[in-house]
Amino acid sequence: MLEHLKEKVCKANLDLVKNGLVLFTWGNVSEIDRGAGYIVIKPSGVSYGHMKPEDMVVVDLEGNVVDGKLRPSSDTPTHIELYKAFPNLGGITHTHSTYATAWAQAGRDIPFYGTTHADYFYGDIPCARSLTQAEVDGDYEKNTGLVIIEKFKGLNPLEVPGVLVKSHGVFAFGKDGAQSVYHATVLEEVAKMATITETVNNKAARADKFLLEKHYQRKHGKNAYYGQK
Amino acid sequence: MLEHLKEKVCKANLDLVKNGLVLFTWGNVSEIDRGAGYIVIKPSGVSYGHMKPEDMVVVDLEGNVVDGKLRPSSDTPTHIELYKAFPNLGGITHTHSTYATAWAQAGRDIPFYGTTHADYFYGDIPCARSLTQAEVDGDYEKNTGLVIIEKFKGLNPLEVPGVLVKSHGVFAFGKDGAQSVYHATVLEEVAKMATITETVNNKAARADKFLLEKHYQRKHGKNAYYGQK
Amino acid sequence: MLEHLKEKVCKANLDLVKNGLVLFTWGNVSEIDRGAGYIVIKPSGVSYGHMKPEDMVVVDLEGNVVDGKLRPSSDTPTHIELYKAFPNLGGITHTHSTYATAWAQAGRDIPFYGTTHADYFYGDIPCARSLTQAEVDGDYEKNTGLVIIEKFKGLNPLEVPGVLVKSHGVFAFGKDGAQSVYHATVLEEVAKMATITETVNNKAARADKFLLEKHYQRKHGKNAYYGQK
Amino acid sequence: MLEHLKEKVCKANLDLVKNGLVLFTWGNVSEIDRGAGYIVIKPSGVSYGHMKPEDMVVVDLEGNVVDGKLRPSSDTPTHIELYKAFPNLGGITHTHSTYATAWAQAGRDIPFYGTTHADYFYGDIPCARSLTQAEVDGDYEKNTGLVIIEKFKGLNPLEVPGVLVKSHGVFAFGKDGAQSVYHATVLEEVAKMATITETVNNKAARADKFLLEKHYQRKHGKNAYYGQK
Repeated sequence: MLEHLKEKVCKANLDLVKNGLVLFTWGNVSEIDRGAGYIVIKPSGVSYGHMKPEDMVVVDLEGNVVDGKLRPSSDTPTHIELYKAFPNLGGITHTHSTYATAWAQAGRDIPFYGTTHADYFYGDIPCARSLTQAEVDGDYEKNTGLVIIEKFKGLNPLEVPGVLVKSHGVFAFGKDGAQSVYHATVLEEVAKMATITETVNNKAARADKFLLEKHYQRKHGKNAYYGQK
Repeated sequence: MLEHLKEKVCKANLDLVKNGLVLFTWGNVSEIDRGAGYIVIKPSGVSYGHMKPEDMVVVDLEGNVVDGKLRPSSDTPTHIELYKAFPNLGGITHTHSTYATAWAQAGRDIPFYGTTHADYFYGDIPCARSLTQAEVDGDYEKNTGLVIIEKFKGLNPLEVPGVLVKSHGVFAFGKDGAQSVYHATVLEEVAKMATITETVNNKAARADKFLLEKHYQRKHGKNAYYGQK
Repeated sequence: MLEHLKEKVCKANLDLVKNGLVLFTWGNVSEIDRGAGYIVIKPSGVSYGHMKPEDMVVVDLEGNVVDGKLRPSSDTPTHIELYKAFPNLGGITHTHSTYATAWAQAGRDIPFYGTTHADYFYGDIPCARSLTQAEVDGDYEKNTGLVIIEKFKGLNPLEVPGVLVKSHGVFAFGKDGAQSVYHATVLEEVAKMATITETVNNKAARADKFLLEKHYQRKHGKNAYYGQK
Repeated sequence: MLEHLKEKVCKANLDLVKNGLVLFTWGNVSEIDRGAGYIVIKPSGVSYGHMKPEDMVVVDLEGNVVDGKLRPSSDTPTHIELYKAFPNLGGITHTHSTYATAWAQAGRDIPFYGTTHADYFYGDIPCARSLTQAEVDGDYEKNTGLVIIEKFKGLNPLEVPGVLVKSHGVFAFGKDGAQSVYHATVLEEVAKMATITETVNNKAARADKFLLEKHYQRKHGKNAYYGQK
């Protein structure tokens, strides 16, 4: 079932390792088949070293496993909430990548300091608030999705394709799983650059809004001229 | 003698190199066979490049070498004290990994800043006090074990599976040698994240206690649901 | 057409990856054939993994593609302005390398702190000003070249072979493409060293002017004695 | 001539690359044959990628090339001064390794913060003063040796086997070339740890003198018990 998608999702998960975003079993990638209404996601706590496409788990939007012998990632309910809230979302990556997670622990949005950021993120990278005790003690993973959705009021997850969750880590977005891994990789690099920027200038200021506009639009706008046709 | 255990301990020591935790001959891993009352440990000052299972040294709980042609690690008396004090302890790793050692040199506990930490350490990672001159001039390596034990009053080394020793380095714990290496690797990553967290927010605060509870218990509690059954 | 130069430029672009200066498709290298009046440059947004010499694009100094099936780098107009302004310039590298870009985001010149810097850069590494809204909204990439040229009044790009552009990244210079990659690599290392220098001494001062003179001249002056004859 | 020593020195130079201490042609290692009164040293400005034992240069203690087709390292006069001043010195490494060079640029001794440091360096790692203009304009490389010697009054270069030179870089010492590379590697790691130590505790203090004594002596003292007999 969904063999092609399982292959894509497996490869995207392995790219997390290749891109230096995960230690051990940390992190996970999913992708949705909007037609079928099914999500393919990494199994929970399985080593990347031995992961194969057939280990991927297929779940429906209520979280029921519809195919696969393993348990899905414990973060599956977060992914489901995000897919339900954002109809244009095709893939999600969750990581604890080092610099981005440090910003999440610091509880700070990552300011738009330059064009590396603007080429992919159309504004600051937001940091969602801490969950309350009721939210943590209740349906924790689902509520993690809900605080992200709350933070994205007025934002488009394909225009700002990543978010930090306070005291936790990163969720990155894409039109498919592979692109969400790409954005998670950019987010980590942008977080590292922002850290160094503030280290060498403790009064560093955001770049100009018109520069953000220019760089984002030359890559993603309707008159985009970056890349091949 | 204990051939299987020597293989496991040799492999765990080599994983220190693979995980980027050691330079040269630094660091060592041991594992105990509680039934036999014997500890298998890395030989002292031997290069990882040429290390073989038969180089591992078997010692009893009084520190006598019962098998092996090489001298055991000079830190063996520290390991012995810890195995004697904590009956549930199965493996110990000692490293001078970069970030964690810097925190040891800074003399600080690593605060619980987020879920990466909480997934493995049930609370701050403690930093044991400096040894006194009498303790250093006396039975130094044994006393290193004793200051750790003093710091762990009320703590379970399988719940807080790592400790810093002031001005020195890291000891990490596990149910076996391999798991202690795993925890030493997490500890280094958590130390790096905590450093960056404080760099970007000099008023960073610990995460909520209920988040620590949630994350630790979803992995290790009696109703744990992380990973496969 | 210009097959040999395409090979050189392709190799120089791949060296960006080897030297750790780029993620994904970021960055580009060009080299000019002054006799022909043509520039060979990396195609826009193409993955380094599959890049071949025949993918390189040949453009003239008005920006017209004279050979090649792909679009040239979107930064081509910046390269063109620089080649036109500096007749001794043979190659240009553009990167978003981590530390150097952070200094660009911080909006700071990199101070001459030591001989590593002086061996290649004859003075501080300048940071060009932000572009105005008119400059960004107008011919953005051309204007990026113009603010660099403005900053280089009185400077020789082969003596100070690199520049930061505020809120953006790095342009590095050389007598050919390969040397511009070399200088981009040095610039990243020098930016990292300068960051750590200020971290451990927040009153760090520039090295003496006569040390700069000595180190630069022993490598590049008319009585240079570094290297082989 | 001195074929065996050329092989050792070539291998030691290549270890600089393997240990991550050099970029491009930076850095050099030499070793002395005290009986012959000859030094074998890396040629100047030659790429490590193509370096072979026969490229090594043999010089006498007056700096005359007695064997080899290439020019010796431009830093040869520094090595010569050090070999002349310290009769127990067998090998010297010069690097611009990142963290250590940053401390040199910061003009600071690296404080003894812990046992990683004490296992190899019997006290702070000194930073020699800046050279005066007369010293730089005169016999620069020789005078670099002399300011190191001035700083080492009362110190033994095999007990404190490394030094920073203000605004410049590192010279590390050993009983042979290989050991000087080992010490240069430790020095870089210790510099990195010290940087992070001060980042997480801006009031970090030196470790106790008796801990330095203990760790240094258990490895190097007459009753040393670290390593194999």
